[in-house]
Amino acid sequence: MMVIITSVQNKYVKEWKKLHKRKYRYEKNQFLIEGFHLIEEAYKTKQSIETVIVEEGIAILPIIDMLDVVTVSKQVFKEISQTERPQGIAAVINMESPQPKEERYVLLLDAIQDPGNLGTIIRTADAAGFSNIILGRGTVDLYNDKVIRATQGSLFHIPIVQKDLTESIPRLKESGFSVWATTLQRAKNYRDIEPSEKTAIILGNEGSGVDETLINMADELVKIPIYGKAESLNVGIAAGILMYYIRN
Amino acid sequence: MMVIITSVQNKYVKEWKKLHKRKYRYEKNQFLIEGFHLIEEAYKTKQSIETVIVEEGIAILPIIDMLDVVTVSKQVFKEISQTERPQGIAAVINMESPQPKEERYVLLLDAIQDPGNLGTIIRTADAAGFSNIILGRGTVDLYNDKVIRATQGSLFHIPIVQKDLTESIPRLKESGFSVWATTLQRAKNYRDIEPSEKTAIILGNEGSGVDETLINMADELVKIPIYGKAESLNVGIAAGILMYYIRN
Repeated sequence: MMVIITSVQNKYVKEWKKLHKRKYRYEKNQFLIEGFHLIEEAYKTKQSIETVIVEEGIAILPIIDMLDVVTVSKQVFKEISQTERPQGIAAVINMESPQPKEERYVLLLDAIQDPGNLGTIIRTADAAGFSNIILGRGTVDLYNDKVIRATQGSLFHIPIVQKDLTESIPRLKESGFSVWATTLQRAKNYRDIEPSEKTAIILGNEGSGVDETLINMADELVKIPIYGKAESLNVGIAAGILMYYIRN
Repeated sequence: MMVIITSVQNKYVKEWKKLHKRKYRYEKNQFLIEGFHLIEEAYKTKQSIETVIVEEGIAILPIIDMLDVVTVSKQVFKEISQTERPQGIAAVINMESPQPKEERYVLLLDAIQDPGNLGTIIRTADAAGFSNIILGRGTVDLYNDKVIRATQGSLFHIPIVQKDLTESIPRLKESGFSVWATTLQRAKNYRDIEPSEKTAIILGNEGSGVDETLINMADELVKIPIYGKAESLNVGIAAGILMYYIRN
């Protein structure tokens, strides 16, 4: 007999909704994802899927049969959903420490605040074949729903950790990395620097850029030249240009 | 004596609000911009500023003194505003045909639908020193408020026209342009093609890419390689990587 959760007061529904909040995600070490594509990616990449939540009447993917599925009413799904046009499928994922991978091209992010920017940067780092990403202090939470959506699943493809960058940079330098920081002052055109075999690059906050302390720890200061009248580039665009330059 | 418009029923307020709609913008050949930065950019770049609308009590820029300023109540400004946190300053700008400029690097956009993407791409084209942009059919309106905001003023720096790309491409080819189209099929890695002195590049819709008819008109089919597991790049990121490659 299939049970359908129809009350928004149901204890599970209340628990799922709490995952909208960062604090609670880290208490439970769980986060929510939404939509067919992300759930398929989570399954394909062998994430630890706790529960799949499906709206009554939604045709589910064949793979979902093998998972723990809970059916809910349309009204309940709406409570859980954080999108404007819900697809009627969500899942609770258990956070796991990413598998260590040989580091070669590393992306360091200092206080990126816009969820769309962070998600797009993660997607681009994945595309550019970067080995891993380190999120420094002040960066928007990786498990924020808008971040997850903008990654289009890339958060399951590339190891991402949240660490203090002042600890990560010396460690990378000791392992033979050349660490680049993006900044406008005292910086060279990126095309005038030959990426070394192991390169890490720091990108910074949308308004204030990379923190001065981190800039002072870097081996190379780089900038992307502005040929026109724009004051700056969007940080996601800058990340894309630099990561593809380094990777090539 | 300074008159303050306090009624949302005021005929000017009604006219301004109508500019939220695309249809009405083209009937009046006017559009709205909002915020200090954009108004400063409009002034500096000598746009035809019809009216500046300022919320009562907002300290205005010195330059504004020279313009036709209307003061409105907080409530009225809220009606006109399309942002979440209004800065209390907006302006009605008259559309003008962009000044023709010598074309060298041209960006063609086919049916880009996300306003944030379009705005960011315009900002990037400006930064990369592209000479002009042609918006093909199905592209979101240039004067949409979200597009304008994302350009960060670059819509005033670079000539932008809305034209059928099937007409623009042959014209560009006749003037000696090499026209590139981005596509995944039958395409070469962009780094294997040497940009010619005059290069135009077509980027396409977020979901379906560049239209087949336009692909068939191009001289070169290019793609950005995916080294990781991401399925694709965001169109704005792709635009940034390719424009900077061409420009360098």
